[in-house]
Amino acid sequence: MKITELERDAVYKTIFSRRDVRGQFKPKPIPDDVLKRILTAAHHAPSVGFMQPWDFIVVKNQVVKEKIKLGFEDANKTSAAMFDDEKMQQYKNLKLEGILESPVGICVTCDRSRNGPVVLGRTINPEMDLYSSVCAVQNLWLAARAENIGVGWVSIIHDDVIKSALNIPEDINIIAYLCLGYVTQFNDKPELEKLGWLPRRDVDSAIHFDGWKQK
Amino acid sequence: MKITELERDAVYKTIFSRRDVRGQFKPKPIPDDVLKRILTAAHHAPSVGFMQPWDFIVVKNQVVKEKIKLGFEDANKTSAAMFDDEKMQQYKNLKLEGILESPVGICVTCDRSRNGPVVLGRTINPEMDLYSSVCAVQNLWLAARAENIGVGWVSIIHDDVIKSALNIPEDINIIAYLCLGYVTQFNDKPELEKLGWLPRRDVDSAIHFDGWKQK
Repeated sequence: MKITELERDAVYKTIFSRRDVRGQFKPKPIPDDVLKRILTAAHHAPSVGFMQPWDFIVVKNQVVKEKIKLGFEDANKTSAAMFDDEKMQQYKNLKLEGILESPVGICVTCDRSRNGPVVLGRTINPEMDLYSSVCAVQNLWLAARAENIGVGWVSIIHDDVIKSALNIPEDINIIAYLCLGYVTQFNDKPELEKLGWLPRRDVDSAIHFDGWKQK
Repeated sequence: MKITELERDAVYKTIFSRRDVRGQFKPKPIPDDVLKRILTAAHHAPSVGFMQPWDFIVVKNQVVKEKIKLGFEDANKTSAAMFDDEKMQQYKNLKLEGILESPVGICVTCDRSRNGPVVLGRTINPEMDLYSSVCAVQNLWLAARAENIGVGWVSIIHDDVIKSALNIPEDINIIAYLCLGYVTQFNDKPELEKLGWLPRRDVDSAIHFDGWKQK
């Protein structure tokens, strides 16, 4: 199946305008059919040995969201204290999540024991199943952007808080807790770039040829 | 920036027709500008604390490719022996990589010490930087598909073989070794699904609401 140039450009537009959204969520609900399309795209990520180790837990319940929010606040206090004085002040002023403002949360997991202990392609590199679930996150993120829906990844939270809030068994791995919703706008640049936290690295400095640091 | 319905459908078409390519590579070279677009898309993946921990090593050199191929063959022998008798026969008949046939290899890495020891968003979950580099792999994969270029992920190989072949320093993590090239065709389904290795899981069984296994 051929992708045309117009279709290709739509993919690039989506990739380059995707943002990590924390502060621009609108309460407008996400229709069920839209959410289903996004999750179906996530489900069509590549997976090692075709094991499809992911699950998606959709969170709309307010009580569950409040437990997640408390978990973030607790972990964020510990995190702030890890920065030196100057960065700490800047850190504390950042809006880092939209757990309560976004209409939908999605927890992405990885069942490492799915389809038995020996998995084609995971024999040498055991982390491949975790990486498959991360690929599902990125598919989800781009599909959401294509639906004009923003996504934010909440990584400042302990796995056991998420497991407890969502009754997730001990042997299932948490990959991501994502916040989804329509937005007032997509920023033209990543927020941390805009605010001067770190600059965008020149892409050429990231590309090497036939060996490390070879140009 | 709004994504139109036509553009959205192009993104879905790309996501659903993306394949892990092992056996359909053509020798036709990938033009430099096309490769640069694909790598620029990878470079615009989300990254924890905007640390952009990835690097991309483009491999065209035949000697380097042969070292990678030998590393795969060695690891694949060990891997085959891990399956029970019935699966082992099926396993041995599978084409699992296109290292020598594909015109371009790309090694994606992660520099975990980039921008210092304390990284915004990695304070609680240390694996977040590795996951950022995996998001870059998935951006690369979809951008390549949008260019009608196939990608295969070679995971049956030890990191130290890749490091040695590409002079990658000890403290840099290997995330993926990818094979890229134009293809004779994109299969309509994943090869492991077609061959009956494992079935496609029903997407509804992967979706839960407000708690594990809640429908």
